[in-house]
Order: sequence, then C-alpha cells, then structure tokens
Amino acid sequence: MVKLLFLAGSTREASLNKKLAVVAAKKAKDLGVDAMFVDLKEFEMPIYNGDLEDRQGLPEGAKKLKKLFVEADGFFIASPEYNSSFSALLKNALDWISRSEDKDEQPLSAYKGKVAALAAVSPGGYGGMRGLVPLRMMLGNIGVTVIPSQMAVPSGFDAFDDKGGLIKEGQQKMLLNLLQEFVSTTKALAR
Amino acid sequence: MVKLLFLAGSTREASLNKKLAVVAAKKAKDLGVDAMFVDLKEFEMPIYNGDLEDRQGLPEGAKKLKKLFVEADGFFIASPEYNSSFSALLKNALDWISRSEDKDEQPLSAYKGKVAALAAVSPGGYGGMRGLVPLRMMLGNIGVTVIPSQMAVPSGFDAFDDKGGLIKEGQQKMLLNLLQEFVSTTKALAR
Amino acid sequence: MVKLLFLAGSTREASLNKKLAVVAAKKAKDLGVDAMFVDLKEFEMPIYNGDLEDRQGLPEGAKKLKKLFVEADGFFIASPEYNSSFSALLKNALDWISRSEDKDEQPLSAYKGKVAALAAVSPGGYGGMRGLVPLRMMLGNIGVTVIPSQMAVPSGFDAFDDKGGLIKEGQQKMLLNLLQEFVSTTKALAR
Amino acid sequence: MVKLLFLAGSTREASLNKKLAVVAAKKAKDLGVDAMFVDLKEFEMPIYNGDLEDRQGLPEGAKKLKKLFVEADGFFIASPEYNSSFSALLKNALDWISRSEDKDEQPLSAYKGKVAALAAVSPGGYGGMRGLVPLRMMLGNIGVTVIPSQMAVPSGFDAFDDKGGLIKEGQQKMLLNLLQEFVSTTKALAR
Repeated sequence: MVKLLFLAGSTREASLNKKLAVVAAKKAKDLGVDAMFVDLKEFEMPIYNGDLEDRQGLPEGAKKLKKLFVEADGFFIASPEYNSSFSALLKNALDWISRSEDKDEQPLSAYKGKVAALAAVSPGGYGGMRGLVPLRMMLGNIGVTVIPSQMAVPSGFDAFDDKGGLIKEGQQKMLLNLLQEFVSTTKALAR
Repeated sequence: MVKLLFLAGSTREASLNKKLAVVAAKKAKDLGVDAMFVDLKEFEMPIYNGDLEDRQGLPEGAKKLKKLFVEADGFFIASPEYNSSFSALLKNALDWISRSEDKDEQPLSAYKGKVAALAAVSPGGYGGMRGLVPLRMMLGNIGVTVIPSQMAVPSGFDAFDDKGGLIKEGQQKMLLNLLQEFVSTTKALAR
Repeated sequence: MVKLLFLAGSTREASLNKKLAVVAAKKAKDLGVDAMFVDLKEFEMPIYNGDLEDRQGLPEGAKKLKKLFVEADGFFIASPEYNSSFSALLKNALDWISRSEDKDEQPLSAYKGKVAALAAVSPGGYGGMRGLVPLRMMLGNIGVTVIPSQMAVPSGFDAFDDKGGLIKEGQQKMLLNLLQEFVSTTKALAR
Repeated sequence: MVKLLFLAGSTREASLNKKLAVVAAKKAKDLGVDAMFVDLKEFEMPIYNGDLEDRQGLPEGAKKLKKLFVEADGFFIASPEYNSSFSALLKNALDWISRSEDKDEQPLSAYKGKVAALAAVSPGGYGGMRGLVPLRMMLGNIGVTVIPSQMAVPSGFDAFDDKGGLIKEGQQKMLLNLLQEFVSTTKALAR
C-alpha cells in the first residue's frame, strides 16, 4: 500500500493550509491509501546553517521528518503564500531533510523517485497560487515528480465548515480529483 | 508498447538540439519502445492568431502534429535557448496543438496525462539549462507530467561525433539514464 | 523627452490586450511623454530560424521594429496568456530584434538599459497574470529593467467601454499608477 | 548620498557568499556611496509564525533589520543556492521585515521603491545561478526593482584571495560593472 504524507507550510494554530492538508489526508484515506498528516510543529528545527550541521549533524526534528519522507512514496503540500513565495518554515524543513547523514547514503534520498501534489489556500482572491510556482520549480529540480494538477482555494476564511470540510461542492470535487491523480501517479511510480 | 515522440525546438539544418533529439530517439528504440523523431520543419504553421483560427481552424501542420501528440504517451523535447527562454517555433507549435478542434473534444487532449522529458544543448557553458525553466513551468501548467531529471549539454559544437552520437561517455550515460527514467515513467503512467 | 513604445502580444483584430496597450499609450501621452502604440501586425516576420538569418539577415519587419526599440527608452507590453505563458508572436518578435545586424553592434542593443512595464487582460478570473511570470523572467535576463508594478485585468470582455477606455475606476487608477511608475523610472534611468 | 546594504543569505562562518557581500560592500564604498555589510547573524529571529507575530509583534532582530532596509535605498544580496532555491534564512528575514508594525504604516515599506542587485557564489560550476531565479521573481513581486545584471561565481573555493578579494581579473571587473549599475540605478531612482 502506498504511503503518503500530508503537510502544511505553516505551524500557525488556525492555519488554513493546515486545514486543507488535514482534510486532504482524510479524503485520501477514503481512497484506500496509507495517508498521514504531519504537523511541522512537532518537528522543530533551527534555521539551517552549515556550521551547525558540521558540529551536530541533523537536528532530531529533521531526522524524524526525513525518516518519514524516506519511507513515504509521495507527499502533499498545502503551502501558504508569503510574499509570492512559500514559507521559510517549509523551505527550512525541505532543506534540512535534503542533507545526507552519512557518506554511503544516496543524495536526496528523501526526494528522489517521490511524487508530490501541491495545493494552497489563502484569504485573498488568488488562493495562494503564486507561491506554488517556485515550490513546483524547486521540487522538480531535486528529483520529485510533481503532478501537474494543483489546487488553489481563494477566500479561505469561508472555505471550511466547522468540522474542517470544504464547504463548496466544486472544491470538494476538485480536491477529490487532485487526490485521485496523486494516488494513481504514486501507485504507478512506486517501486 | 508506449509511443514516444522526440522533437527539437529548432528547424535549423545543423541544429544541435535536433541532433540531440535524433540520438535520443535512437537510444530510446534500443530500450524497446516505439520512438519517433519529429522534425518540426515538416509541420509548418503560421504564427498563432485567433482570427486565423476562427476562419480556418487548425492549419494542416498543426492538425498532423496534434494527432501525433494525442496518440503518443510521452514526448522528449530538446530545446534551444533563445534569450534565456525557449524558441517561438516551439511555443507556436505547442500553442496550436493545445487548441480543440470541436466542442466535444476534451481540452488539452494533446497534453493531459502525457509525460515529458526535457533536454538542451548549447555552444556555451551552461548547455541551455536556463531555457528549460520556463518550458518545464509551462508544460506542468497544461497537464503534462515533466520528469524531474533533465539534461543540459554544454560546448555543443564538440559534443557529437560524425554519426551524431554523443562523444563523452559521461553524457552518453546521462542520456541513457534520462531515457530510462522517461520510459519507465511513461510506461507506469500510460493508461 | 522619453520615448515609450506600447505593444500587445497579439495581432487579433479584437484583441483585449491590444485595447489595453492602446489606452495605456493614450494615458501615457497625457503624462507628457512621447508614447507610441506599435501594432505587431505591421511588423510581420517569419518564425525565427538561424539558417534564414544567415542567408538574409533580419527580415524587414524585424529591422523596423528593432529600430523603434533601439530608439526608445522603454516599452509597455500587454501580453495575452496562452497556456500559462506569453504568445509565440511576442517571443518571435523579441527574439528577432535581439539579434545583432553587424559585428560592431553592441549585443542586445534593443534591450540593454531599457525599462519595461507589463500588463495583461484576459476573459477569465486571473487576468492573464500567469503569463507575465515567464515574460518578466526573460526580460530581466536580457538587460531590461522591468518595473515591479504590473497590472492584470480579469473579466476582460466587460473591461472596456465603446471608446476603448477602462470602465472600472479602480482599474483606471491602477493603470495610471502603473504608467506613472513606468514614466518616472524611465525618465530616471534614461541616459 | 545613497545608502546601500550588502547581505548574504548565509550565516556560516566561512560562507563564500558572505565573502562576496563583504568585498562588494568594500568596492561599493570606493564608488562613493554609503555601503554597509549586514551580517544576518546579528539579527537573529525565530522562524516566522503568525501566532508568534500576533502575540509579540516583530522580534528585535527583525525590527532592527527592517529599520536598516527602510532607511536604505538599495540592497545587494549574495545568495547561496540550496536545492536550486535561496536559503530559508534569507526567506525568513525577508518575510519578517515585510510585515507592518502598525496600521498606519505603508505596506512593504522595507521594499517598495527600493533597488536590488543579486549575486551568488558556489563551489560548483554554475555559481549558484539557479537560486537567483526564484529570488528575483519574489523581489519583483513585492515592489523591488531588481537590476537586470547579476553575477554568479563558480568554483567558489578558489575565487577569493587571503584578504577576501576576488582573484580573477574578469570577476573583479564583472563585480565592478554590477556595482556601477547598482549604484547608478539606485541614485537615479532614489527620491
């Protein structure tokens, strides 16, 4: 059974993107895959610095997160848009887990051969779609197959019901389509 | 058997990227797939203009090329870099074949669900890699799964032997790896 | 007095982006600059091909357009979005005029030191903003200072009145702000 | 006299990009401007989190850095490339100082109307140029005029002499040209 991670580029308590990642993970389980929501809050790590890495190796949070990525077949990222790009929090986590822990390790073992799906939600009218451009660009450059479909949810404060579900039927359907493409691509490419 | 197209973003007689597409097609055949080099020279079309399309529909060259794309499972593009982006020739062909010919046709039928691999060769030191950034960006936006690996061949005038083969062993190997990833991804995703 | 060109990436008769470029040129004149709308329709050129260039040099349309660019201090481009990128028509024109006509010419004389402003209008909800990403990227790479402000007009079929003016006051103001920044930047940087 | 900041996207002790920012600041002073090297190490800040901001406002490091940006006319960034993009350290600092501290403040006061120049140095053959693509994209989106010229220094471990100067004459000249364009653009656009 393929293993999929669902994470958000924000640790804010009421983060809209966290909500999106959580509901996506739930819906993915309904599709019969092993889907796990990963809250970056539980994987704290300092801002990446090469000297720090030389002295101490990967911080515990990065080691744990990297292990999840290495074992997963794909990951879904709900990414907030800060200044038209993705968050430092997300970049920092992605950078730390890109590092090898010993000489014999394959480079980019957290990423190579993996599949990713991207989504965003924002309070504004564009749904955070601008931030997905550099995220897609980066992931493609480090060996991840990013599926072409993606989802940007505008007017995010009105998008979710009390139980965290998407209110609009159209968006529910869009998410389902995205997840189906994500799951089928991951199944097809998993070795 | 999966069907793969190999094309170059140039119609120049001695085009380095044409050479790269030709040798890639040959090597792909050795991997046991249906690989076809497509010379854009044989698919002439005027520069896209909506009025022209309204009056005459797709030009013959575009119809023929689109048919090949619709029937193919994947395409390999060797793209020259003009002003840090890909050629107008390539953009024009890709735009024309993105158009639907009748109301019942699925939009983007030439692209949706297809797999692409990108490569470039240039006389300079960067091998045309800058032009692949916007090309990857565009294809991802229209439903194409672009595989993460790509290849940029620098010093292109010295890259090929008389028979059109890549001279450097490292580049031969890189092309082979790229093609293997391209073929396996296309096989996996072909429906 | 600074000289500014206003062009659209479409030659379609009823092109929304042509309308936007025309009204922008008119408003720029009101700001006391030499503003000229340039219809690419009057500068026909074949799709760029290196062999063609070797045999015949720049086609007449490209020579004329290049001359306008060389003499101008800045250019405003209203760019339609085709498949999330700008048009082949525009890329082709920009590529042809990037070419030198003789050995002593400075490379990229049409672009180096020039200022550009970007805008887009589309029938859809995003106003063609996605196509401006690769256009901005390319121009920055060839020596053009692209001003940070830009304008994307959604619901383009309802955006203009019978005389070609923008209907919404907010958009009129946005265009005016964009032009003021464009004019002041060009004046400041013109040598 | 225009005020220019010079910073690096790394706090590593022996950072090549820090070296590049330091030598650039020194050379800029020779051009008669107020040039200041800013070590991000002295502006520590936690990873951006909206809840944290709601509770405590900007951290001290961010306030101090923002003040420098607000007072400056331009900034030069030497950016290391991590996973084909810029560092989380840099993104984090740029995001924090993008935030307003009170309701009456103009949005993006650290950025609007400012000029930026980008550079990179890396141990590899491309000089970190890939990471400048998303950095340029982001800065352009938040109101910064990024000058078209940029500089990527390959083989970075062999690029500097004992005193921190660039060894190769060609690179010294390239840096000088970049700084001259940076200074003249900033002077022209400073209000």
